[in-house]
Amino acid sequence: MKSAKVVDVHTHMYPPSYMDLLRARNKVPYVRSFPDDPAAGDRLVILPAEDTTSTSRGRPIGPEYYDVEEKLAFMKAHDIDVSVISLANPWLDWLDPAEAAETACKVNDDVERMCSEHEGKLYAFGTLPLSGSAGEVVKEIERLAKLPHHRGIVMGTSGLGSGLDDPALDPIYGALEQSQQLVFLHPHYGLPTSVFGERASDYGHVLPLALGFPLETTIAVTRMLLSGVWDRFPKLNVLIAHSGGTLPFLAGRIESCVAHDAHLKKQGKLESRRDVWDVLKNNIYLDAVIYADVGLKAAVDASGADRLLFGTDHPFFPPLDESESEWLSVKLNSKAVRSAFGDNTETAAAIMGGNAMRILGLPE
Amino acid sequence: MKSAKVVDVHTHMYPPSYMDLLRARNKVPYVRSFPDDPAAGDRLVILPAEDTTSTSRGRPIGPEYYDVEEKLAFMKAHDIDVSVISLANPWLDWLDPAEAAETACKVNDDVERMCSEHEGKLYAFGTLPLSGSAGEVVKEIERLAKLPHHRGIVMGTSGLGSGLDDPALDPIYGALEQSQQLVFLHPHYGLPTSVFGERASDYGHVLPLALGFPLETTIAVTRMLLSGVWDRFPKLNVLIAHSGGTLPFLAGRIESCVAHDAHLKKQGKLESRRDVWDVLKNNIYLDAVIYADVGLKAAVDASGADRLLFGTDHPFFPPLDESESEWLSVKLNSKAVRSAFGDNTETAAAIMGGNAMRILGLPE
Repeated sequence: MKSAKVVDVHTHMYPPSYMDLLRARNKVPYVRSFPDDPAAGDRLVILPAEDTTSTSRGRPIGPEYYDVEEKLAFMKAHDIDVSVISLANPWLDWLDPAEAAETACKVNDDVERMCSEHEGKLYAFGTLPLSGSAGEVVKEIERLAKLPHHRGIVMGTSGLGSGLDDPALDPIYGALEQSQQLVFLHPHYGLPTSVFGERASDYGHVLPLALGFPLETTIAVTRMLLSGVWDRFPKLNVLIAHSGGTLPFLAGRIESCVAHDAHLKKQGKLESRRDVWDVLKNNIYLDAVIYADVGLKAAVDASGADRLLFGTDHPFFPPLDESESEWLSVKLNSKAVRSAFGDNTETAAAIMGGNAMRILGLPE
Repeated sequence: MKSAKVVDVHTHMYPPSYMDLLRARNKVPYVRSFPDDPAAGDRLVILPAEDTTSTSRGRPIGPEYYDVEEKLAFMKAHDIDVSVISLANPWLDWLDPAEAAETACKVNDDVERMCSEHEGKLYAFGTLPLSGSAGEVVKEIERLAKLPHHRGIVMGTSGLGSGLDDPALDPIYGALEQSQQLVFLHPHYGLPTSVFGERASDYGHVLPLALGFPLETTIAVTRMLLSGVWDRFPKLNVLIAHSGGTLPFLAGRIESCVAHDAHLKKQGKLESRRDVWDVLKNNIYLDAVIYADVGLKAAVDASGADRLLFGTDHPFFPPLDESESEWLSVKLNSKAVRSAFGDNTETAAAIMGGNAMRILGLPE
């Protein structure tokens, strides 16, 4: 039966315990105001490339980042019935292991409490203490499995420090697969600033945000694929941010490069591996945060219309004109769904919410 | 009227003058055999990431790289009527300016001669001496405009040393626009190896080739767009390798990031700029070297079916099994066209050759 609910699977919050951490810091990531520009108010600076006076430093940060009432008001204004919130990047990999474990626990409990106070409207992807040992991380995964409003975990691309193709992650992937928690894979570090050239800051934050993020994601998921993560964990499910980075578009090239690689052939790695199409259709879900029908259709072609999930990326990308109550970023994403699949079709309803209800087991 | 000819717009050769250069060198780029592995024969090493004993060093190089008879035999075996050949990367930016100018002249004359010896079968994109002054480059552009088998130029992403958003390139863009020579934009440097992580060489050359190349291209073309190249040169036409890198997929995100950028707004840069969709449909052509229908359809959605042009990337990506006379890499690309647009449709015929005939003004 078709669900008419709209579910936002890509929506972030910093709960109070995490805000306290950010405010206590003076290097990236941090939240502070700048004496040389007091009118700019509090700024959230999370990327090294934003931490320079030559561009707007970071972004304004207000209660939309940490106040659950703001999240609910945003949902109401945009006809969103359910939000599956996740901590925004950069998560916890910059903390020392003990602090990371303790913070993960606090953040997840904070968020669980928020969800339970707004029953049926809020669910969550939990945060892992990915700076310590795999053992600590597995312990939090097992704890998260018992939190009734949690439906998986959010994860960056750094893993335990050397990427998602690190064999040391196997116990973590195993625990996630075992408890069938969805991994929401989300970029944070982008690419080294050198690749954007010496004029990058002329273009504001466009290059690191528009390209750095999805290209980081694409590299991370391709490394997972090539290292055989899904051969070893065939039931590990991953929701990839921003419609897969660029994975749907590049999947053909990736497979062709694999099939033409003499080194992989010599190592016997071309036999009995699961290819990218298999993984796209059986292990990967894609959010629909892509801002145009061209990309959205490619994502659906690659993974299937039953595997795309609407998202907003709130509270990032607010309208530049504060008087606009409907956010352009949200409008672009919902318009892409309508433009690609029609106004009132089963497919559009599935992407806008039905798929998320089913995949995350949310109550009707 | 529908053309039944098949035209390959993405096909490389090293003419004799360039081979001599590569053989005389002992650092990247170079051609040589290795005493520790004589069975491997001559190897072509063009990427720093390939220049290591931990992977297969570079790739075997034989006459398919420099012998025009091999090109013609490949065309015959794959039912290709016309090839528009270009020098393979890395072109000339590693030479000193005087040597670059002289080499460009030699290479272009070598290639022009090859084409004239096989009338109607071979055309070319010329090579520019992009290591010297804009003046030298403009001179070669003007000379190329008079060579009867040349139809444009091939260009990497480095420009005059600091990328394609360098204002110093304006005289070059102006001369290309003025003489209506198509720019074939092709990657070479990929991304810094650090982004592929410490296990990258376990995956042969897959990460730099499958991801590094198209991601480099995407960054380069986005920098052109953001720096206003197409605002200043509204008739500059660019054919982007590998179906635009990932531009068709990311176009929506690029536009959204621009529309949400406070820095660009403050500078008044959001007004009267040409957006990526406008440029994709009026200035950009895309080759169809994408190896799957998912990406091909997205490229067509972004640019239009009248702007996609079949290509092979020959002689790169030969079959691993030498007994295969039909190349898998070619088969994947032609199959993608058939799978997306049918076997005998106008659209398929246009992509396979008709578009190239019209756009490049090739005689029937």
